[in-house]
Amino acid sequence: MADYRAPVGDMRFVLRELADIGGLAQLPGYEHAEPELVDQILDEAGKLASDVLSPLNWSGDREGVQLDNGVVRTPNGFAEAYRAYVEAGWNALPFDADYGGQGLPWTVALSLMEMWNSANMAWALCPMLTVGAVELLQTHGSDWQRDAYLPKLISGEWTGTMNLTEPQAGSDVGALKTRAVKDGDHYRITGQKIFITWGEHDAAENVIHMVLARTPDAPAGTKGISLFIVPKYLPNEDGTPGPRNDLRCVSVEHKLGIHASPTCTMAFGDNEGAIGYLVGEENAGMKCMFTMMNNARLTVGVQGLAIAERAYQAARQHAFDRVQSRPLDGSASDAVPIARHPDVRRMLLTMRARVEAMRALAYSAGNALDRAKHGADEDARRAAQARVDLLTPIVKAWCTDQGVEVASIGIQVHGGMGFIEETGAAQHYRDARIAPIYEGTNGIQALDLMGRKVLRDGGESAGAYIAELRATLDDLDKLNDPDAKAIADALRPALDHLESATQAVLRSARDDVNKAAAVATPYLLLFGTVAGGTLLGRAAVSAHRSLSNGADYGRDFLEDKVAIARFYTDHILPHAGAYAAEVERGADSVLRLPEERL
Amino acid sequence: MADYRAPVGDMRFVLRELADIGGLAQLPGYEHAEPELVDQILDEAGKLASDVLSPLNWSGDREGVQLDNGVVRTPNGFAEAYRAYVEAGWNALPFDADYGGQGLPWTVALSLMEMWNSANMAWALCPMLTVGAVELLQTHGSDWQRDAYLPKLISGEWTGTMNLTEPQAGSDVGALKTRAVKDGDHYRITGQKIFITWGEHDAAENVIHMVLARTPDAPAGTKGISLFIVPKYLPNEDGTPGPRNDLRCVSVEHKLGIHASPTCTMAFGDNEGAIGYLVGEENAGMKCMFTMMNNARLTVGVQGLAIAERAYQAARQHAFDRVQSRPLDGSASDAVPIARHPDVRRMLLTMRARVEAMRALAYSAGNALDRAKHGADEDARRAAQARVDLLTPIVKAWCTDQGVEVASIGIQVHGGMGFIEETGAAQHYRDARIAPIYEGTNGIQALDLMGRKVLRDGGESAGAYIAELRATLDDLDKLNDPDAKAIADALRPALDHLESATQAVLRSARDDVNKAAAVATPYLLLFGTVAGGTLLGRAAVSAHRSLSNGADYGRDFLEDKVAIARFYTDHILPHAGAYAAEVERGADSVLRLPEERL
Repeated sequence: MADYRAPVGDMRFVLRELADIGGLAQLPGYEHAEPELVDQILDEAGKLASDVLSPLNWSGDREGVQLDNGVVRTPNGFAEAYRAYVEAGWNALPFDADYGGQGLPWTVALSLMEMWNSANMAWALCPMLTVGAVELLQTHGSDWQRDAYLPKLISGEWTGTMNLTEPQAGSDVGALKTRAVKDGDHYRITGQKIFITWGEHDAAENVIHMVLARTPDAPAGTKGISLFIVPKYLPNEDGTPGPRNDLRCVSVEHKLGIHASPTCTMAFGDNEGAIGYLVGEENAGMKCMFTMMNNARLTVGVQGLAIAERAYQAARQHAFDRVQSRPLDGSASDAVPIARHPDVRRMLLTMRARVEAMRALAYSAGNALDRAKHGADEDARRAAQARVDLLTPIVKAWCTDQGVEVASIGIQVHGGMGFIEETGAAQHYRDARIAPIYEGTNGIQALDLMGRKVLRDGGESAGAYIAELRATLDDLDKLNDPDAKAIADALRPALDHLESATQAVLRSARDDVNKAAAVATPYLLLFGTVAGGTLLGRAAVSAHRSLSNGADYGRDFLEDKVAIARFYTDHILPHAGAYAAEVERGADSVLRLPEERL
Repeated sequence: MADYRAPVGDMRFVLRELADIGGLAQLPGYEHAEPELVDQILDEAGKLASDVLSPLNWSGDREGVQLDNGVVRTPNGFAEAYRAYVEAGWNALPFDADYGGQGLPWTVALSLMEMWNSANMAWALCPMLTVGAVELLQTHGSDWQRDAYLPKLISGEWTGTMNLTEPQAGSDVGALKTRAVKDGDHYRITGQKIFITWGEHDAAENVIHMVLARTPDAPAGTKGISLFIVPKYLPNEDGTPGPRNDLRCVSVEHKLGIHASPTCTMAFGDNEGAIGYLVGEENAGMKCMFTMMNNARLTVGVQGLAIAERAYQAARQHAFDRVQSRPLDGSASDAVPIARHPDVRRMLLTMRARVEAMRALAYSAGNALDRAKHGADEDARRAAQARVDLLTPIVKAWCTDQGVEVASIGIQVHGGMGFIEETGAAQHYRDARIAPIYEGTNGIQALDLMGRKVLRDGGESAGAYIAELRATLDDLDKLNDPDAKAIADALRPALDHLESATQAVLRSARDDVNKAAAVATPYLLLFGTVAGGTLLGRAAVSAHRSLSNGADYGRDFLEDKVAIARFYTDHILPHAGAYAAEVERGADSVLRLPEERL
């Protein structure tokens, strides 16, 4: 099975050149995040990912999790790996120093999330869910709630969960029925939640559930949802875990992938009712939930990137190891490594170009997130927040769809061996498939992009981003170089397509909301494809500059960035025109047939 | 878990309107294949598929196969289902009457293959491999070989296998090392074969292995390969299975999917050497293999279609059963079945339009196969053979790639439930993934299409097919109908793209074979996308005619065909332009980077 090595060189390049980590270090509160420090962080995190987490990926898949009388046992080594991660301080990296965090940029945290997820996606879900809980309490928790929970959640000694879904309430969170009844200074929670990731496990001493529930007289739908902290063990005054709360894991799911991540059905209040503490106001739970969820959505997008990176590394390794068939051009009389065959090259480059475009988009969304939190003034923060809001559904859906496709190509590069579980390529294909579903299906993301992010402000935020992307065309033109020209020539019509498709949905939504919704997915894919390609164009510009300035990435590395941008514009960007055609002409044929004849 | 019902109405429409089953019944030898008989066959086969095979699909996946001291036990019910299939005479359907076959068209056999594979892909592989063995012996076997093996293989009492692959010889069959040494009237076979589908099992009384091996003084590579019949039990004079041959199954693979299909490592000649009988001449094994393989390639393409059809049925069922969220347009105040939400509609229609395009292409390839065998004269047969040769790699690769994509969409429609194995959608996603790999990877298919089918005859055969596709434009134009006009307007540039891309590869191959190979895959996808779309256009023409003639499919059914063609031209066909751009501009960026920097 192929090892994973964190692609530290590529990460560093994207962080510096496309996610402006240097600029972030000039924002108030991020002064200590110097690029040199970030380099050291990447190197150290890469070691944990490669040496500790990655070796547990395959064994974790085989072993899965065991539920025994409410106790969930994670695979061998998982709890130890989690403790090593906590002890090294990794969990605290992006959080406020007030509660023990290191206050480093989210952009850096996202690059580490990429590593953890490439190394071991099932394991990485545990810290990922904790991040959401921390964000939630930082934003909406009361003073005592922050004091009681944040230090332990930030250090990672305790882990967090998101308890949203019920059997009848999946995408439609407002349909949930879990009850919360006031009982003195707390509430009693009763109900059942499904699909709770890391809802119960043996890797940390306490699990803090963030539970959506409904008070007895709450209005129907999403307006009547409240959010509660429901700890597995109620904390003692001294911060240690105290009495057991009335909640338990009643089953774990038998899933296609991420076998080592316990997906729990949680029962709250089988006896006297689980004790829960209201976060914020009653009936304001949806806002709290979105705080948790938006962060998680960006990270799920990074999971798509992460699994694609790992699938690429495995396929590449195989393509050099596997010797089969002579070259078509007669350049060798014996069989050669299959990497030499043009169609295998095409597959590897497709994987790599997609990975690099995803990384560029995800990390640049991280930059916007950091500016939204630490921007120099209110206007800068507001503009940056609009950018994060716009990019979040794109990163989530576009990257996770590609995670699946790239993992599938990874199997194909392996040939027959790819279908054998022991090879490992199949696990990536299985694991990748959850990411387009959870934290809001990709269809929900597309509706979010179209409705809340584009239509609501009349296309202003999208227009501002497209204008910024267009600036890359000028930079490419100025280079006066044939590669740069070819890249710009391909990007120009693609950006035109994105702009005209945006206008088209603004028009059609006025007419009929269903028409806009019918093409929301191709619109999102168009946006991701064009933005990703433009960022690779920007990478080519940076590479060109570095090549002339003799900068420190190395000549081959920089030339590769230009070659990858060319590959992307030749092989992936052309589909932007097809997505635009779907958006501009395709709504009626989605809506035409009567429902019963679908 | 969703049931499977054979889509007999759709199959009948495609067989009659696009695969000209009526015309086939006028060819010598096919006079009895009247459309009415074919209708009865579809109905009866549909019952076996729905009632017997489909209920074993999920249990078979869970149970898998067990190897115990050389004996392979298939899942509960599999052997009984196979016996029911044999006893009903299904196996004999397309074969020559001389040895007990029913002499019905291959086009009909392909439609039944679709049913068996939709119902239970792992099971269907057993009869599928037997077909290859029969074809081989019919074409290349000696009289005594045909007499000894064909009646049992045609009835299905014995099953056949293809023993090609060895660890070092996958796509490069010429690298195989299994030895065959002459010993009187037979040979002694020694060696190990891997990935042997249904290589050993308990569903039939004998297994007849078709084994590629090398005689001691054979030339290197594919020119030195011979093909042998190596039966598990050597037949007695009276046709019963006699002494056990020196071969055994030493292991079964642990695979991503098709768990119920034993994928065996076979050891030949551990003791005195397995007895094998040469088919045809020494060193002429590759030709024999292609006879087996070409048939199998078409059927594997049908597997892609079949799994997509089943995934579509399951997703559709779920979309009507699952009630979630109110409509965006406010047309209902309660949650509705998710089929009503535009993005779910889009997913279902994408699945269905792809399925219908695949079926149209696969069955029309079946028509060409039948005309190649039964055409009225030599010229007609030669032209039809060129057509089968052209379409086989397209059907194999384009349909199996789409099988994976459609199964993936099927999971997505199910949301979180799709990731839970018990739902069944995940099995289709796992099973579908083998089809782009076996019987020649899709990359090999793309090279076959480009090299042997397009470049070798200077584009003649491809040009003839494209011209025939163009005729559909005239038929659409003549209808003088807005839908027909929209379909034709979309098809015209797509056909232009296919034509110009064909010219482009003819030019670039003269220059550098690697340049053609670098874009062979997008060329194949372009070909499939445009041909499939044009056939849906032809379906729309037929539907229009039937609508005006008051024909017997029913008005809704016929209007659906027009709507599906529109959906395809709006949402899938636009990608033809992108594939064409890849073909025409994309070779250099595939070949540019030095190998070590891929």
